Amino acid sequence: MSLERVYEPIRKDMERVETGLRSIYKNAPPRLSGILEHSLGAGGKKVRPALVFLSGSFYRHNPDRLLSMALAVEVLHTATLVHDDAIDNSAVRRGRETINKAWGLDKAILIGDYLLAEAEELTMATENLPVIGLFAHTIKAIASAEICQSQDAFRPDLTREQYIERIAGKTASLLSLATESGARLSEAPLEAVRGLREYGYNLGIAFQIVDDVLDFIGVEEDIGKPVGSDLAEGTITLPSMLLMEHYPVDNPVRRLCENAGDRNDNIRQAIGMFRDSPFVDECYGVAMKYRDRSLHSLEVLPEGDLRTSLKELAAYVLSRKR
Amino acid sequence: MSLERVYEPIRKDMERVETGLRSIYKNAPPRLSGILEHSLGAGGKKVRPALVFLSGSFYRHNPDRLLSMALAVEVLHTATLVHDDAIDNSAVRRGRETINKAWGLDKAILIGDYLLAEAEELTMATENLPVIGLFAHTIKAIASAEICQSQDAFRPDLTREQYIERIAGKTASLLSLATESGARLSEAPLEAVRGLREYGYNLGIAFQIVDDVLDFIGVEEDIGKPVGSDLAEGTITLPSMLLMEHYPVDNPVRRLCENAGDRNDNIRQAIGMFRDSPFVDECYGVAMKYRDRSLHSLEVLPEGDLRTSLKELAAYVLSRKR
Repeated sequence: MSLERVYEPIRKDMERVETGLRSIYKNAPPRLSGILEHSLGAGGKKVRPALVFLSGSFYRHNPDRLLSMALAVEVLHTATLVHDDAIDNSAVRRGRETINKAWGLDKAILIGDYLLAEAEELTMATENLPVIGLFAHTIKAIASAEICQSQDAFRPDLTREQYIERIAGKTASLLSLATESGARLSEAPLEAVRGLREYGYNLGIAFQIVDDVLDFIGVEEDIGKPVGSDLAEGTITLPSMLLMEHYPVDNPVRRLCENAGDRNDNIRQAIGMFRDSPFVDECYGVAMKYRDRSLHSLEVLPEGDLRTSLKELAAYVLSRKR
Repeated sequence: MSLERVYEPIRKDMERVETGLRSIYKNAPPRLSGILEHSLGAGGKKVRPALVFLSGSFYRHNPDRLLSMALAVEVLHTATLVHDDAIDNSAVRRGRETINKAWGLDKAILIGDYLLAEAEELTMATENLPVIGLFAHTIKAIASAEICQSQDAFRPDLTREQYIERIAGKTASLLSLATESGARLSEAPLEAVRGLREYGYNLGIAFQIVDDVLDFIGVEEDIGKPVGSDLAEGTITLPSMLLMEHYPVDNPVRRLCENAGDRNDNIRQAIGMFRDSPFVDECYGVAMKYRDRSLHSLEVLPEGDLRTSLKELAAYVLSRKR
């Protein structure tokens, strides 16, 4: 499953996304332009703008407003990555130096703020108040979930429910913003708005579970950052939770949380224990449950290329290696 | 000149600001509530919400929409303070521990993001697209100016023009957002919108020059943070610029920029040189020029309590010690 094929019905739209991102950093104040190009021009899969176009093209729509929204979700996503990297003091993202590493923490905080405002301006260009409201609400949901994640760092007693709630806030909220805003901007019937919102939400949960698995079993060159980053920051995810459930005593994740033994040894051991275990399939099983829900939500939509692409995107999310 | 007297025509409105701020942190997710209360409940002069009400009450207006906007500018202001403190690694603000000091850098970045989104939601409640657009544009102006300030840290060759441009972005933009949005939300005639925008802008420049002077000649208990904070961060302001102009050789600010001699000694010397010099009056002279422009902009507005308060506020800005 290639993304190129998934994006085929919206190929022209996706080209306009690239042009639009370029014009953001080209039209920015000269002293910001270079830093903005570094973050906005770093590539990436562009799943979120694609979701806006795929979701927004079923019914009558204004292509310029969809484009604004597609750019808004990508810019917002970039803003959250810039701030995440600043928080985690990460050095590499998408195979490039992070803003905090290349320009310092202060620039990373401020460029993140600038990007948040840029995303808001783009959302405003849709002139759709419910969509603008949804956008602000989503930033709050993301920040709120990240704060909880940070408060829960190195706490081994996270429940499944709390885990899902957290990834709903930090990831699924943005994917469902993309799909719901696409639907709303195309005057989709209420049933379709609900279907696309739920598709985005469930896809987001599946997407993040796979992300959390890849942090254990991925290859650094593919995922664009060091393996084991989550554990290094004390973020407990589904793989760690399964390891602790199945090995309640003498567990490297638990030792990491208790600050017992060498930190890097504990991380390496946890990764080793997980990689060749049946827990990998168990995690994918949970992700598939959410993927199936996302596919089910699409039933209310008209058949055709767009719906096929959304289905294929759900398949891609499960199969992806990066 | 007391602020209480200035706020007299909008006393009831200002009470609603306090209630509104309380309800923001009371209605927030429980795990964020305490941190939000710490930042939003720390007092402060509330100049920005007052400007919204004073500017927005000349003509026909919806009090609930003005309140939303007044809260939005105060929350946005708080967000910028939270991020500023994180960037400067400051320990004290308004006499309290900063968020970064009390909860860590990560929480400060995320709470700032949350507050930015909260401010955006509040702005959205005005349902006025030009005001929403102005709001996003203002965040970009602030972040952009702060980035330039950070790029210019410890650079002694700042021109007056660059200095004014920077404080226009980082301070005047928010004060003119407050006055212009008040005007727009009250369907003020175009001439009055322009007058109030220019009043806010010029008041903002005067306000920041006084702030920069107080960083040299103020008392720590009054200004709520250590004296000499700007120099400690390498931020060159009008007082430093005058010191360098008048003492081109063997100047402590220049030594600080060149990393020559003891850092704290240089800061102490610069403060000592400035405190009892004629440069204090020279700075106030520049601030007065902008105050006069702000007063002049008010001429287009109807006479009465509101205009008198705006004039008194301009006088207060020059006389304030904190």
